[in-house]
Amino acid sequence: MRIAVLSGGVGGARFVRGLLAHLSSPAAPAGAAGAEVTVVANTGDDITLHGLRVCPDIDTILYTLGGAVHEEQGWGRRDERSTVAEELAAYGAGPSWFTLGDRDIATHLVRTRMLGAGWTLSQVTAALAERWQPGVTLLPMSDQPVETHVLVDDPDRRAVHLQEWWVRMRAGVPAHGFPLLGLDRAVAAPGVLDALREADVVLLPPSNPVVSLGPVLAVPGVRDAVRGTRAPVVGVSPVIGGAAVRGMAEQCLAALDVPCTAGGVAGLLVDLLDGWLVDDVDLDATREDLSGTGGRGGRPETVGTDLLMRDVAGAARLAGEALGLALRLAGRDAA
Amino acid sequence: MRIAVLSGGVGGARFVRGLLAHLSSPAAPAGAAGAEVTVVANTGDDITLHGLRVCPDIDTILYTLGGAVHEEQGWGRRDERSTVAEELAAYGAGPSWFTLGDRDIATHLVRTRMLGAGWTLSQVTAALAERWQPGVTLLPMSDQPVETHVLVDDPDRRAVHLQEWWVRMRAGVPAHGFPLLGLDRAVAAPGVLDALREADVVLLPPSNPVVSLGPVLAVPGVRDAVRGTRAPVVGVSPVIGGAAVRGMAEQCLAALDVPCTAGGVAGLLVDLLDGWLVDDVDLDATREDLSGTGGRGGRPETVGTDLLMRDVAGAARLAGEALGLALRLAGRDAA
Repeated sequence: MRIAVLSGGVGGARFVRGLLAHLSSPAAPAGAAGAEVTVVANTGDDITLHGLRVCPDIDTILYTLGGAVHEEQGWGRRDERSTVAEELAAYGAGPSWFTLGDRDIATHLVRTRMLGAGWTLSQVTAALAERWQPGVTLLPMSDQPVETHVLVDDPDRRAVHLQEWWVRMRAGVPAHGFPLLGLDRAVAAPGVLDALREADVVLLPPSNPVVSLGPVLAVPGVRDAVRGTRAPVVGVSPVIGGAAVRGMAEQCLAALDVPCTAGGVAGLLVDLLDGWLVDDVDLDATREDLSGTGGRGGRPETVGTDLLMRDVAGAARLAGEALGLALRLAGRDAA
Repeated sequence: MRIAVLSGGVGGARFVRGLLAHLSSPAAPAGAAGAEVTVVANTGDDITLHGLRVCPDIDTILYTLGGAVHEEQGWGRRDERSTVAEELAAYGAGPSWFTLGDRDIATHLVRTRMLGAGWTLSQVTAALAERWQPGVTLLPMSDQPVETHVLVDDPDRRAVHLQEWWVRMRAGVPAHGFPLLGLDRAVAAPGVLDALREADVVLLPPSNPVVSLGPVLAVPGVRDAVRGTRAPVVGVSPVIGGAAVRGMAEQCLAALDVPCTAGGVAGLLVDLLDGWLVDDVDLDATREDLSGTGGRGGRPETVGTDLLMRDVAGAARLAGEALGLALRLAGRDAA
């Protein structure tokens, strides 16, 4: 069984960790034993700070699957310190609004050095994965830099990097759009399109639909590959009861005049979805929202469950439900 | 009073710290109140590690004069950790024989980023000095990279970087020479030659004559500027009783077939020296060694004292004796 997942940071990483736990559990479906999971990670959050190339979503996935993540925070390393960042601040070296942890900096040093020596981001990611043994094939969406910026109302600057909008401005400045700088020169990284085309199941975890899944799907060929895959495509809503479980989906959806509801998010993905997993509290409203839509092969099958991933077991249960829905849809198509 | 100092790392940094203490003490000579000290630092030890540009002697001087040095060790930061280095090792990112401290890494990040943005090493050093307020004008010997390598007996590699010879090989492999890579493209950094020409006193601290003072003096124009300055030039022996006080002077002198004695070291500098400060135990032998030499204006005046800098007060006493000897020689010339 080949499973392809498009992923942002924390939500995607936790979902994939749950998926791997489910696949090796007694509850796993037939064929799960040798399942191969490919994760295509968003790199639109990437940023160069202090000369270091930082890939937040890739690192969150590696640290989470490698057992090294700061569990409460959801990103960064456990047992982390910020000695280097404090020293950088003492030199007045900006930006001051983004703090890199000491352990984390080693990852960025290795990556920056390898990129400088001519390795591609795919190759660097594979090299970093040798340490973390994530149990999946982790691919960046593209080897070319694509950086998500945010159009804001600022007389001095029309656009800021997503990280600056999120971390420094705390998404408190209204956004009007999310241009992807570098997208015109980007191609899907090696293996990305094949993984989507040849998958038996495609899963979209509860990642931000605008600035996490959005950049991945915007890479030339990716959206078409998901739309055209023979595999069932099942997504998980990142919104429960009108609020994002975490992150900045609310502010991002507002910028696009999309309601912050499970149905609103599904509307952004409706050309891709065979199945849509929402929280029980949202089931009726979402079905109502989607009643007039087309989906890939008609209206996406919308199913309600408990969407909160409280721990690894909870994430395994959720991933199992998404996978189960996908396999059920595949069986229905086959029947 | 303008004082110019050529300096390597630990010995030079401690000597200059003593000099500043002496200049602000009751024992200071007339004219010391507004004394301007310019330190020209060896950059032959510089090395790029993990993509970071490391300037060991400049940093040792900044940390020592800025009150942040690891006092017992003589270099690096006080209260230092090696979290980043441990993580780099966990990635298998070499070299493993050189450990960068966490606090220290911030200095290298700032420097590397600024160099990458087009600043010269002189400008970067001045920017770093804004934090450390060393109380001197600190100049690199050259803005161009000059790296000291070591010719060794190794069937695979004829030459290694000085840091590798010293740190990894612990100077246990015989050296046959110290080529300075990049020297052909190096010019003295802005201000270096003027500082030497216009000085009232030139001091050579107890730094390694081969791989610390050697590279500085090898930069085109520097040796001539010291030789031609109207100021008295006084050096301090790094050797006591046939042994280097610290560092690798013994192994370096052996490579050049120069005896590891105060007289042997003076022989390498004799075209520059008006005065030579040695330990009391070496006074007679050194005078004997130098009896046949010429020096700048005849045989250098050799004076004995207690050369060990046990603490800042001891370094102040030693620097005071070197300065006093220089002023005495200047007075003799003026008389």
